[in-house]
This record gives sequence, C-alpha cells and structure tokens, in this order.
Amino acid sequence: MKKTLLLTPGPTQIPADLCAALGRPIIHHRTPQFQQVLKEVQQGLQYVLGTQSDVYLLACSGTGTMEAAVCNLVSPGDKVITVEGGKFGERWTELCQVYGGDIRVVKVTWGKAAQAKQIKDLLDKEPDIKAVFVTLNETSTAVSTNIQAIAEVTRKTDAVLVVDAISGLGAMELKMDEWGADVVASASHKGFMLPPGLGFVAVNEKAFKLVERCASPRYYFDFRKSKKALAQTDTPFTPAIGIIIALAESLKKFREAGLDKMLAEYARLAQATRAAGQALGMEAFPDAECCSSALSALRVPAGVDGEKLVKIMRDTYGVTMAGGQDELKGKVVRIAHMGAIDEFDLLAGIGCLEKVLKQLGHKFAMGAGVKAAQEVLNA
Amino acid sequence: MKKTLLLTPGPTQIPADLCAALGRPIIHHRTPQFQQVLKEVQQGLQYVLGTQSDVYLLACSGTGTMEAAVCNLVSPGDKVITVEGGKFGERWTELCQVYGGDIRVVKVTWGKAAQAKQIKDLLDKEPDIKAVFVTLNETSTAVSTNIQAIAEVTRKTDAVLVVDAISGLGAMELKMDEWGADVVASASHKGFMLPPGLGFVAVNEKAFKLVERCASPRYYFDFRKSKKALAQTDTPFTPAIGIIIALAESLKKFREAGLDKMLAEYARLAQATRAAGQALGMEAFPDAECCSSALSALRVPAGVDGEKLVKIMRDTYGVTMAGGQDELKGKVVRIAHMGAIDEFDLLAGIGCLEKVLKQLGHKFAMGAGVKAAQEVLNA
Repeated sequence: MKKTLLLTPGPTQIPADLCAALGRPIIHHRTPQFQQVLKEVQQGLQYVLGTQSDVYLLACSGTGTMEAAVCNLVSPGDKVITVEGGKFGERWTELCQVYGGDIRVVKVTWGKAAQAKQIKDLLDKEPDIKAVFVTLNETSTAVSTNIQAIAEVTRKTDAVLVVDAISGLGAMELKMDEWGADVVASASHKGFMLPPGLGFVAVNEKAFKLVERCASPRYYFDFRKSKKALAQTDTPFTPAIGIIIALAESLKKFREAGLDKMLAEYARLAQATRAAGQALGMEAFPDAECCSSALSALRVPAGVDGEKLVKIMRDTYGVTMAGGQDELKGKVVRIAHMGAIDEFDLLAGIGCLEKVLKQLGHKFAMGAGVKAAQEVLNA
Repeated sequence: MKKTLLLTPGPTQIPADLCAALGRPIIHHRTPQFQQVLKEVQQGLQYVLGTQSDVYLLACSGTGTMEAAVCNLVSPGDKVITVEGGKFGERWTELCQVYGGDIRVVKVTWGKAAQAKQIKDLLDKEPDIKAVFVTLNETSTAVSTNIQAIAEVTRKTDAVLVVDAISGLGAMELKMDEWGADVVASASHKGFMLPPGLGFVAVNEKAFKLVERCASPRYYFDFRKSKKALAQTDTPFTPAIGIIIALAESLKKFREAGLDKMLAEYARLAQATRAAGQALGMEAFPDAECCSSALSALRVPAGVDGEKLVKIMRDTYGVTMAGGQDELKGKVVRIAHMGAIDEFDLLAGIGCLEKVLKQLGHKFAMGAGVKAAQEVLNA
C-alpha cells in the first residue's frame, strides 16, 4: 500500500472533499448558476484579503497574475522599485524589465527581509516612482516581509504598492485595506488547497487610476476588461470553471474555521518545524526575525546531499518536500504550513526526514526532531 | 431527480472517468512522475495535431493562447492579415491592434467563409506580410474555414499561418504538418472534454524564427521560455497540473478510438442536427458549403424568442445549448458535436428543443426533428 504525503509549498495537498468538487460535472460559465458561484467566490476572497476592492479572477497560474499586475501598471519608462531577496522577487524585476520599467532594485541578501526604511529612502529621493513590487512570502527562501510597514510608507505617497501574495495569502496575515496595500496577486494552489490554474488579483481605486493610464499592451490580462465584466458578475474570457467551483468550497472552510485561527495554527506549525530542525542540526535558513509562518526552509546538514535527501523521501517513501531553488539548490529542505497540512502531517513528514537523514549518515538522536515538534505542539 | 445535459461548444461535458481523473490527489510538477505525464501529453497532442513540432502547454484558457501567438509573432508595425467572419476572428484583429500590428482585415459576412484567393491576393500585393491569422471553427457562427487551401497559399510565402483551432481541434480535420499550418492554438475545454484552464500552442520552425525576432513584451506566454523548458520535459511556470493529468487520459481515448473515426462521427452528428433543424423550420445559419462539423448554429424560427428558448431548456429541463453572440444574440441556437457528445445525447437535446419550441407557440409536427436526425443516424 503506497500512500503519499505532499508537504510542498505549492501545489499543496487537496482535501478529499475539494477533490470531489473538482470532479463534479462541469457547468457552463455564462449561466445564472455559475454567476452565483462567482458571487460567493468574490465575497470569500474579499474576506481572506481583508478588502472591499474588486478581485479579478484570471485563468492562469501565479506568474500570470504577476505579469497581469506589471502589464496593467507599468508603462515604458515608468520608475518602479522591486525588492529582490529570492527567486520570486527577481521575477518582479524581470517582468518590469520586459515592460520597459526604469527599475530601482532593492537587493536583499537571501534569508533576510527588506526594511520599510529602504523603500522610504528611495521614494523620498524620487517621488515620481509609480509602483513598488514586493513579496509577502518569498517561497524560495521562506522569508516573510513586513508588508504592513512598507504600506505605511507607500500610502503617504503616489506610489502603488503591489504585493505578490501567491504563497502567502490564506497562510499568513495580510490586511489589504487596513494596511493600505494597493494590488495583491495570488493563486489557487497554495493556501487555497486547489490545483494551479486559477489566479486572482485585487486592485484598489488608487491602483486602478494607474491601470487606466497604462500604455503597455495587454488583452487577456487587461484589468479594464476584468472590471467591466465583474460589474456584470462575469469574466471577460472563459474562466477556470472547475477550480472556481472548488474555490467556493475552499472559501467556506476559511469562513467556518475563521481566518485568524487558521493563521495562528500555521504559525504554530512553523514554530514546531523550526524546533524540529534545530534538534536535527538543521537550522532555519532565514534570519529569526523574518522566518515565514507559511513555509520553513531548513538547512541541509553538512555532509548530506540535499537533492538526494528530497529524492529518497519522495521516491522511496512517498513524502514530498521541496528542495532548494537556484542558489539554494541542494542546500535547504522546504516544508509548507498552509492549506490542509496539519500537525500530524508535520510529525509524519519529520519522521520521514529523520529516517532518510539517518540513511544518509547524518548523526543525531533518532526521534529528536519529532519530539521537539511535539513539545511545541503540545505546550 | 434533476439531470443535466451539456451540449454547448465549450465547456463540453466531461465523461465520468475524466471527472474522476480531475478529482485525484495532486502531485508536484517538478517530479519524474509528472514528467512522465508531460511526455504522454506531448505525444498525444502531436498525434491529434498531426505534427512533429513542439506543443507548448500554457496555464490559460483559449484567448490566452491567442494572445500568446500574437505577442510572440507580431512586433509593432508588422504587417499582418486577420480574417474576420465572427466574434473570434474579430478577436485576432483586436489582439493584433493591441500589439501594434499593421492589419489587413479580410472581412467576411457572418455565415460565410474566407477563401484562400482573398489571402493570396493580399500576399501577392504585399509580400512583406509577416503572419496570417485565421479561425478553423468560428464558434460564434458555426462556420468552418478551409485551412488546407489557405496553407497551400501561405506555405509558398514567408508569411506564417496562425490557426485558432480552439473549438476545432479534436473535433474536425486539421493536419498541421501535411497542410503547412505554422502555429496552431487550442485549449482543453472543447474537443478534449476537460475544464477550461489549459491551453496549448504548436509552433513549427518557420514560425519560431519570427518568435526569436519578435520585439513585443511577453513573459508568462514567452514561447522561448516554453521551448527551453520543454527540452527538459518541464514547463517554465507552474502548469495546470490537474487538467494536464486528465488530458493524458483524454488523449488515450483519442488513440483508442482513432482520430479519423471520431471526426467522421462528429460530421455525422452535424449532418443529423442540420436535418433536424430543417424539419423544425430552423435552417443552419452558415452557407451549406462551410457548415462546421464541430458545432451547428440553427436559426431560431420567426416569432420565437431565442434567448427565452435557451433559458427554458436550461433552467426548466437541464439541457444547456448555447444561444447567439453579438449580432446573432437571440437569433440562433448552437449545439456542439465534439468531445463526449454522442448520438443519443443529440436525440435527447433535439427532444428538449421540440418540447420548448412547442411551449413557445412554434408550429411543427411534434417528433419531426428527432425523426429527421434518426434517419440520418440510421441510414
């Protein structure tokens, strides 16, 4: 009997009832029946985002929502700030380059977070900067950035704050309206426990003024078309019907459990994971003050082949964690705390990690990781 | 017991075994397990397209694949031809406008098909035209265009032939390599019997030269990134994992049934539908020589409210056909012949059509439509 356990930060495991929703017979999207679903999803996403603004549904995965944000906001020659502290921050820079942005890059060492002060200094010097692109949860490094502090800065300026919350939304705190984030992009396959293929972008009025003036070419991702369609409870193009229907179910879970309680639970899982890592000689990669609660990146012990570690867990034992990307390839193991992943999944995952670490010759007291996690989880 | 019958030209009904595939636990996309699926899907799509060229998978719905074709091929100022004989032909024009194309529009009356001669005349006059954008099956009018004849023309020139085969592929003949089509765009939710959210675009070498020279901004849809990733059996960004896994199953059905046999069957259904329409005083909208075999558009009889007809069938009886779009709003009923729709679905649908036509006061011999269809189906 081969079972599997998916602990990656996207896709995340899909609970059985959402699997069943994905397998339902399809309905046509230009019907009152589907409009009812669109309404529920709009309200549910506004709840999770903490916003009254429109949330546009796009049939694409995460990078599509990032490109949508850039091509709707950045005209050739526009001054923008991007924050680069990992692979996904770099993606903002690459996208702004493609659309001819005049970019000020805030370079952050991997494992550290950008500070609001860095953004403030740039905006003070150049008040004609149009937009600031940041990452809530940098999936490649497990660093979380203090968006609230950055929004404190941008809300006093004309610059629009654009947040990649793809792997953060529904897994860690983000209060779009209260904090003053202007554009938030996210997707279905992280905190929302669904397959990839549905993106959503919330856009407030301040940002929409930039959208209307933007000179960059766009059609499929054109927020003006999305806004017009949404006013009629519709989408401009054929939407990802199947995932949207399942998203309505997923969002019910958020309402029932209560967002705050869920976020607190993920934070507890993150704390337990870091404790386990410490007990196994696998320190958290990020600095302590910016460790994400949506996923953990644990350093692979010296002498252990990190790629082999992940491969054996997955191919021999059916437990899938993520390895490192780009400059962290082979150097970290990444474990998600989002969606349907619960404390017992985590214990199982750490158990597998210990089993394979031992096979690969790492010296530690068997059970130390699981025990450390349990101590946090049962404190 | 309320049952439903979906007869629209996208989304189309999803067979129960594909529903089950969509409801499977998800796997991570950067694994050997998923690479195996990508290989199967690549081979299966090449079979259906009749091509040896790369087929790029994009997480988007149909219009996304059309934008992908345009933003990878059309640089600002490039001369292009678009063929407009319906809503989706017009979409090519709109997309080429967005990307700054210098457009020669071949305007065709709705219900008629463009002729290869029209394209030839334009290309003879302006041999520096870069690309020709056409529609295999114009979903808004049920007109099919002779792509083979147009490809005969373009293959002797430098112009690249780009085919929107979104609602045509897998439902009607298209032999990409044999005919000489250079780019073919399609999607998951028509002939392939899956939810919308997965697009694919096949690009041959002639077209790829244009891709490499293209100056338009693109990132998520950049074919250069797709090509590079595909060479490593990967996708550049998180793919629509769930639909891709189900597509592998769908493509097995094409192999098992045999593409030619399936296409012949859809043509037979189309013929039966037109016969039923004629018996009910609902002539086919397109000219006889360009009626599509992938869907039929039947004219709503004078005195009958076409929107009401579609609404009652759907909301009272659970049978969903499509109404008309744009200038055909309220004037036609559209019925698909693709994917899992079979002859008995068709009889059921026509039975429902007759029931509601009668309720709306249309005069005809009850049973005439079903009988006419049966005569074709049992000839």
